[in-house]
Amino acid sequence: MPRLDDVTRGRILYGGDWNPEQWPEEIWEEDVRLMRAAGVNSVTLGVFSWSRIEPRPGERDFGWLDRLMDLAHENGIGVVLATPTASPPPWVGRLHPDTLPVDADGHTELWGGRQHFSHSSATYRRLAAAITEDLAARYAAHPALTLWHINNEYCTHDHGDEAAARFRTWLRHRYGTLDALNTAWGTAFWSQTYGDWDEVLPPRRTHYLKNPAQVLDFRRFTSDMLLECFTAERDIVRRHTPHLPVTTNVMPLWSGQDAWRWAEEEDVVSVDLYPDPDDPFGAQHGALVQDMTRSQARGPWMLMEQAAGAVNWRAVNRPKPRGLNRLWSLQAVARGADAVCCFQWRQSRQGAEKYHSGMLGHAGPEGRAHQEVRRLGADLARIAPHVSGSAVSADVAVLHDWHAWWAADQEGRPSRETGHAELLGAWHRALWRAHLTTDVVHPEHDLTGHRMAVVPQLHLLTDRAADNLVAYVRGGGSLVCGFGTGVVDEDDRVRPGGMDERLRALFGIRTLHEWWPLEPGATVDVEGGLRGTLWSEELEADGTAEETLAYRGGELDGLPAVLRKGSAWYVSTLPEPDALRDLLAHIAAGAGVRPVLEGLPDAVEAVRRGGLLFLLHHGRGEVTVDVPGTHRDLLTGATVTGRVTLGRYGVAVLAP
Amino acid sequence: MPRLDDVTRGRILYGGDWNPEQWPEEIWEEDVRLMRAAGVNSVTLGVFSWSRIEPRPGERDFGWLDRLMDLAHENGIGVVLATPTASPPPWVGRLHPDTLPVDADGHTELWGGRQHFSHSSATYRRLAAAITEDLAARYAAHPALTLWHINNEYCTHDHGDEAAARFRTWLRHRYGTLDALNTAWGTAFWSQTYGDWDEVLPPRRTHYLKNPAQVLDFRRFTSDMLLECFTAERDIVRRHTPHLPVTTNVMPLWSGQDAWRWAEEEDVVSVDLYPDPDDPFGAQHGALVQDMTRSQARGPWMLMEQAAGAVNWRAVNRPKPRGLNRLWSLQAVARGADAVCCFQWRQSRQGAEKYHSGMLGHAGPEGRAHQEVRRLGADLARIAPHVSGSAVSADVAVLHDWHAWWAADQEGRPSRETGHAELLGAWHRALWRAHLTTDVVHPEHDLTGHRMAVVPQLHLLTDRAADNLVAYVRGGGSLVCGFGTGVVDEDDRVRPGGMDERLRALFGIRTLHEWWPLEPGATVDVEGGLRGTLWSEELEADGTAEETLAYRGGELDGLPAVLRKGSAWYVSTLPEPDALRDLLAHIAAGAGVRPVLEGLPDAVEAVRRGGLLFLLHHGRGEVTVDVPGTHRDLLTGATVTGRVTLGRYGVAVLAP
Amino acid sequence: MPRLDDVTRGRILYGGDWNPEQWPEEIWEEDVRLMRAAGVNSVTLGVFSWSRIEPRPGERDFGWLDRLMDLAHENGIGVVLATPTASPPPWVGRLHPDTLPVDADGHTELWGGRQHFSHSSATYRRLAAAITEDLAARYAAHPALTLWHINNEYCTHDHGDEAAARFRTWLRHRYGTLDALNTAWGTAFWSQTYGDWDEVLPPRRTHYLKNPAQVLDFRRFTSDMLLECFTAERDIVRRHTPHLPVTTNVMPLWSGQDAWRWAEEEDVVSVDLYPDPDDPFGAQHGALVQDMTRSQARGPWMLMEQAAGAVNWRAVNRPKPRGLNRLWSLQAVARGADAVCCFQWRQSRQGAEKYHSGMLGHAGPEGRAHQEVRRLGADLARIAPHVSGSAVSADVAVLHDWHAWWAADQEGRPSRETGHAELLGAWHRALWRAHLTTDVVHPEHDLTGHRMAVVPQLHLLTDRAADNLVAYVRGGGSLVCGFGTGVVDEDDRVRPGGMDERLRALFGIRTLHEWWPLEPGATVDVEGGLRGTLWSEELEADGTAEETLAYRGGELDGLPAVLRKGSAWYVSTLPEPDALRDLLAHIAAGAGVRPVLEGLPDAVEAVRRGGLLFLLHHGRGEVTVDVPGTHRDLLTGATVTGRVTLGRYGVAVLAP
Repeated sequence: MPRLDDVTRGRILYGGDWNPEQWPEEIWEEDVRLMRAAGVNSVTLGVFSWSRIEPRPGERDFGWLDRLMDLAHENGIGVVLATPTASPPPWVGRLHPDTLPVDADGHTELWGGRQHFSHSSATYRRLAAAITEDLAARYAAHPALTLWHINNEYCTHDHGDEAAARFRTWLRHRYGTLDALNTAWGTAFWSQTYGDWDEVLPPRRTHYLKNPAQVLDFRRFTSDMLLECFTAERDIVRRHTPHLPVTTNVMPLWSGQDAWRWAEEEDVVSVDLYPDPDDPFGAQHGALVQDMTRSQARGPWMLMEQAAGAVNWRAVNRPKPRGLNRLWSLQAVARGADAVCCFQWRQSRQGAEKYHSGMLGHAGPEGRAHQEVRRLGADLARIAPHVSGSAVSADVAVLHDWHAWWAADQEGRPSRETGHAELLGAWHRALWRAHLTTDVVHPEHDLTGHRMAVVPQLHLLTDRAADNLVAYVRGGGSLVCGFGTGVVDEDDRVRPGGMDERLRALFGIRTLHEWWPLEPGATVDVEGGLRGTLWSEELEADGTAEETLAYRGGELDGLPAVLRKGSAWYVSTLPEPDALRDLLAHIAAGAGVRPVLEGLPDAVEAVRRGGLLFLLHHGRGEVTVDVPGTHRDLLTGATVTGRVTLGRYGVAVLAP
Repeated sequence: MPRLDDVTRGRILYGGDWNPEQWPEEIWEEDVRLMRAAGVNSVTLGVFSWSRIEPRPGERDFGWLDRLMDLAHENGIGVVLATPTASPPPWVGRLHPDTLPVDADGHTELWGGRQHFSHSSATYRRLAAAITEDLAARYAAHPALTLWHINNEYCTHDHGDEAAARFRTWLRHRYGTLDALNTAWGTAFWSQTYGDWDEVLPPRRTHYLKNPAQVLDFRRFTSDMLLECFTAERDIVRRHTPHLPVTTNVMPLWSGQDAWRWAEEEDVVSVDLYPDPDDPFGAQHGALVQDMTRSQARGPWMLMEQAAGAVNWRAVNRPKPRGLNRLWSLQAVARGADAVCCFQWRQSRQGAEKYHSGMLGHAGPEGRAHQEVRRLGADLARIAPHVSGSAVSADVAVLHDWHAWWAADQEGRPSRETGHAELLGAWHRALWRAHLTTDVVHPEHDLTGHRMAVVPQLHLLTDRAADNLVAYVRGGGSLVCGFGTGVVDEDDRVRPGGMDERLRALFGIRTLHEWWPLEPGATVDVEGGLRGTLWSEELEADGTAEETLAYRGGELDGLPAVLRKGSAWYVSTLPEPDALRDLLAHIAAGAGVRPVLEGLPDAVEAVRRGGLLFLLHHGRGEVTVDVPGTHRDLLTGATVTGRVTLGRYGVAVLAP
Repeated sequence: MPRLDDVTRGRILYGGDWNPEQWPEEIWEEDVRLMRAAGVNSVTLGVFSWSRIEPRPGERDFGWLDRLMDLAHENGIGVVLATPTASPPPWVGRLHPDTLPVDADGHTELWGGRQHFSHSSATYRRLAAAITEDLAARYAAHPALTLWHINNEYCTHDHGDEAAARFRTWLRHRYGTLDALNTAWGTAFWSQTYGDWDEVLPPRRTHYLKNPAQVLDFRRFTSDMLLECFTAERDIVRRHTPHLPVTTNVMPLWSGQDAWRWAEEEDVVSVDLYPDPDDPFGAQHGALVQDMTRSQARGPWMLMEQAAGAVNWRAVNRPKPRGLNRLWSLQAVARGADAVCCFQWRQSRQGAEKYHSGMLGHAGPEGRAHQEVRRLGADLARIAPHVSGSAVSADVAVLHDWHAWWAADQEGRPSRETGHAELLGAWHRALWRAHLTTDVVHPEHDLTGHRMAVVPQLHLLTDRAADNLVAYVRGGGSLVCGFGTGVVDEDDRVRPGGMDERLRALFGIRTLHEWWPLEPGATVDVEGGLRGTLWSEELEADGTAEETLAYRGGELDGLPAVLRKGSAWYVSTLPEPDALRDLLAHIAAGAGVRPVLEGLPDAVEAVRRGGLLFLLHHGRGEVTVDVPGTHRDLLTGATVTGRVTLGRYGVAVLAP
């Protein structure tokens, strides 16, 4: 199997999306000259080139792309070549309206933006396959080609008739019989029993709440259909270039496809990552996505897209302050990235993203941001030989599953305040602040490589996953489990008792009497000065728990809030940030998990990759870090002994 | 005419919706065993059973229901049998798309939720009649059957073409000629004059404000069409079982059908009531709905649905704290309920309401909530012989009319802050806090049985209602009238002077110069320390008022805010809660209306039903109530003399 | 060319929309009697009369209008006659669904409101022309007719198929070839290149961001199509009455047609103006609209619609306090209005605007508001001979362009907080508070008549406009330019460097490194105690600026916030209100621009029109104004020397 290492060959890929079809060809030479000056060694071509390659049905215009591929190659820049199927040309939609997606209310999404394709459209798939075939045939032997990039940020939904037909096929495959579907979806309630497959639809507009199992399956179906689109194109390019790896860029905390499944189908896992420069926990958000991506990749991965400066889709789009792009880029490397790429190389002057920054912005080569892009290129080249291909060590597993997310964040739930992504972020943030490096792990996967496992919320928990957790604790693992876990089974059916009985036994809970979700801003007191937010629970212990923190005051006064039974902890509320950090640090210490480095200042993130120690300073002042022993800082070449001083957004990459 | 008494026969009905088609039959036996243990004597079957009874067009499967009816009967549990017409099976929508409702923008509401039926669809009506016919024929003679429950929470709108045709028919009936419609709707404005009946439509999407009289008539039409659906099914079941009463469960403060008209067509009036357990005035909200329902029933009524714990449709769904379900259930009995039922018996494990609590929740029989359900069953059984069938005494009438509501709460009005339901709630709350029991009365109905009448807001006031108010005051009644009353006539036409001239004469108002609605949060000062909210008025008195409280400060300084002329009071703002309570207590005292009991603590609600005095404590501490004389507390059997002590959510039912 | 002077003939027109078709004819006589008592000399008839004139296709009923025209004439009241084409009768929509507009999601806007016509519909245009033709023919010779009023508040959009076809035609005319369109729209990005004209659509629903140049052109197209509708009707009436002027009432800060272009096609410029009586800067908002309208008219103009009291489309609709209607009406006269008219004469009792005030409100002739209407009529008659037809003097030009607005306020921009209208308002407010009278000027127009020019924000700046600004400064003009100016060219293409290089050279800016938009509520400090809001910029000066105020603190510490080079100022943030006022006053003083009067109290607005000095007091207390010399107050006839005392909302009109 081709791998990312085949592409990097000891380097860190550096570059980004290059969309030169926006510019006259005379600019291309300047682009390449500036790329070389910036240390760019990889560009992504063709992401939105369908209308250029196939301006009219069946035509092919590859000449411009030939020239670009050659130009890249002549300049020693590798090409990540994208299939252009994320944005069909206007003629596709006009001649083939069946390729256009339809929303739950029946509105069609038209061309004039992007991603206006239906994953279920046979016509779309046929046209996408044809252009992929020709593209792959054309460039299979081109020496610039290093990696295939299929489509872009797969994320569309379709509720139209062709999608409905495919949904039925998918459901037949899942359930076999209509009876099984009726059972799984609980259609006996509200008189929804299907008597004929043709009655089954995507969750379209209803008068009141939709069937949640239908909604869940539609999310699963959508992920699978998009994955089919991916694998169809992957198989085509693989046929032409079996030696080259294939990837697609995902947005794991946004679009919500099942990235675990997707990663299995990719040779290289790549991700798009856009933390808000104005978010004080932007770096932690980045760390979470990086941990997740590395875990899916089971090794080095690609940061396929980030922004050198501002994006343009937030309400207020702040640029990256001086040093931040470098800091966050090196953070990605610390957490396993062997490619640091931006969308896009040269900022557009026209179109919907003309205010999204580029590596070469409107301010031009003298612009502050571009000067930083150059500095980063040099830094990456300096550390690459020491880091490329190496592994990140993490003792803590954070458990995450998209199906649990889809099942949890539905209408008609106990509280709309308990967003899955927000809970995942809160727990990861607490671990990050405790300087504990994490992997993100699927709940059915082997946990024995981690001393400690943390479950922010797994609303849906399969039998296999429940058994996995129990076995992990039996095997000596330390498990910390947040509320709202083990509520439903794989079919979104509430577990007897409202919480999986295996989990209850694991934590020493006899009865879960009631959920007590909290109003926004409300808190609940717990012994030991801990305050809970968002949620609380009326629990009855079974007497086997060895340690308990009780609620204080209010309706739950005296009832257990936190239980420990052996190495299994249950936390029935979301502790405030400091309290959650301290609790997790305490549990980690008990589990023998140490911070990456003792005595780290709050603002400094430390990560070990291979034999290197990355120190990343997220503050703007100056800070000193005690680092026992003597190291060489690969970025400066300096030898450091005992302590390292980091300035604003400073980074040290220490080799023994 | 069959009545509720025929069903209760000295008991209080206790139980709820039982949807056992969700469960394997082996659970049914457990259900019935647990019901008996909890004192359940009535269950509602079949509410969402259409797809079970008629899985394919024209088929009938009654076997499962036969077994359930028999099982209930064998266990001494009466059955409220529902027609299943609120949620047609998927095949109905697929084979008959004309049965599906369409919104104002043209979107169709599909199956996959519930209530996806058009009241105007001839096909729907035919199919609903057929299954109702067969259901009634099947169980007419079944000994378990006690009451018919038609459909469920009628509340759907339809703007589609068949509804448009029915709307035109309804309008022809109302207005006779197109000229009369044009006059009533004021179509001379904005060039809306209709020249042909076929031009008349439901209020669909427009560029700017819709014709308000058209919107009002569409609300009336919708209520009438849904009522036609009800009466059609009622007539069918009545033909089979003329001896059994018929009801349907309404949501009077939500869906907005004209419950006065509906009550006339029902044998038994029943209601669904879901106050927010977290709302400090949840109990008063309950009291208002209970007063309204009792007034429509003109005697005992059914609480058809409440929740034993949390619901699942709020943003944050709080459970009922220990004791609250019992307190609120007994409050309903105090205010006239002879049936206390829950949705639903056993909490669902699947479907859209799986997080809506049940009498038997996910926690099972040992769950705290279920234990309380058992206690409540015992309490109800204890007091039933003393209370069932008896009347509630109330001296104060609160006037309410749905047509006034529909006319008031439209776009293009003076203030969007003055929601009708909120005003009704605010005035009722002030009376409730003053320990004054209220009936809710239609403004055209006889008021002479009440010493005091309160009009929160009757934006639309018919001539007959205006005359009724005048006659009431002439006859010695005390009338208190809030702002925004008598503004429009039955056709939504503004009364000359902006307020009915009869009312102005009644209160001593010469001229209503301007409305001065207040911005959210703003207040206006009035003499006597009273502060007004939401609204104020620039009024000119005619010199006949005997008492006046003037505005202080601002643009209205010195102008009358409150006027009294004889026993007629006009209040041109919404006083802050304490001030409104005090004002109404003062007026009541003047009218010879006393609180239910003197010296009641704030947290204790007192209601007299039959010869009994209910004391309901809405607080969590302990409170002592002075009760002159000696009574027996029917709940405890204890004799109490002079004073009663009530604990957290405590209730006493005192017999002389 | 006929002009407004031909209508006013030394008078100020006073009156408003008269929609007597809402009332029985017996009321018409009362109307006219009350109009005369109030000094009304002009009424607008027919705005919404299509269904009355043409109740069925092709019929004509003019008799009622004949009687009204005669009645007006007999009473010396001139008639502004409206074509009734803003609200087609129901039969038009039913028989000709192609006349109905369609929104971006495909929803049709139906009759039942108003303005449900598509500017692009050939059928609509044909029917509108036919009724206009007959109306003009009928009344061409009527002695009451003084002015034509075409349609009403043109503002509708249409995304339907016929509009799409016209859009393509418009685009062909603009661009000639599809290649040119592709280039202008930057369709090479996101694979949007059009290969066939038929692929080009209005900006309908897309999956993600729309092409911004397409959106901009659609706004231009919409303005042009509506203007075609206007000119088509104008040409018809002009043929019948070449001696009479033609106007249409625009809403320049709301609907967003290009009022510069429109004004060129009108004989008289008229405006609808509805400041919020509760807005502390309502008067300034009025002043801005008045300045803009006067500037478009290049002389006297009509206030076609205002409200005598409350409107009904805000969330909370406050009435006008005593004196405010007079004050704001006289403000309009001060700023050039020769007509002060209201919507509408008699307040409706029915329909969607029954809670919109009238000159004769629901309270009737004795109502406070109507009494004020009478007083105003007398005031206007008193000052008219001295003011009608005269010019307003203003030394400051505020530059404004609708195309810049449309280009700026799109999705996908750096900050959604920087609304164009809000910025325009903020800058004008600062000038107004500094007592500087302003004209509003198109950026390509001659600026040499103004000593100072202010650019709040011209996101899109054409080459011609940029050259105009440079030439203005070279010629000695003082230019003050706000941020976000000169960003894109006429095709919405970002200028190299992110800001027009001519502007950068003008202000001494070498490089615009980054935009730093601010989060809502955030501020940034600048030297001299100035604080900026909404926006900041990372600028690098080129050393030619003569004066600089630097940012203090934060990421931009020490970088230039405000630059002056000669008489050209650049302000890279929005200073807080007082600071902006002071800055502009300082710059004005340097440019030799003096306030209208020295030492004016904050609450007093002063404007010079012809030889008169208007003093307008926007406060409720009493205030004294120093006015050197001796004047006669035309409103009171009093002679004032040295100082004038103004009471609540007081006005003085001082003649030398």
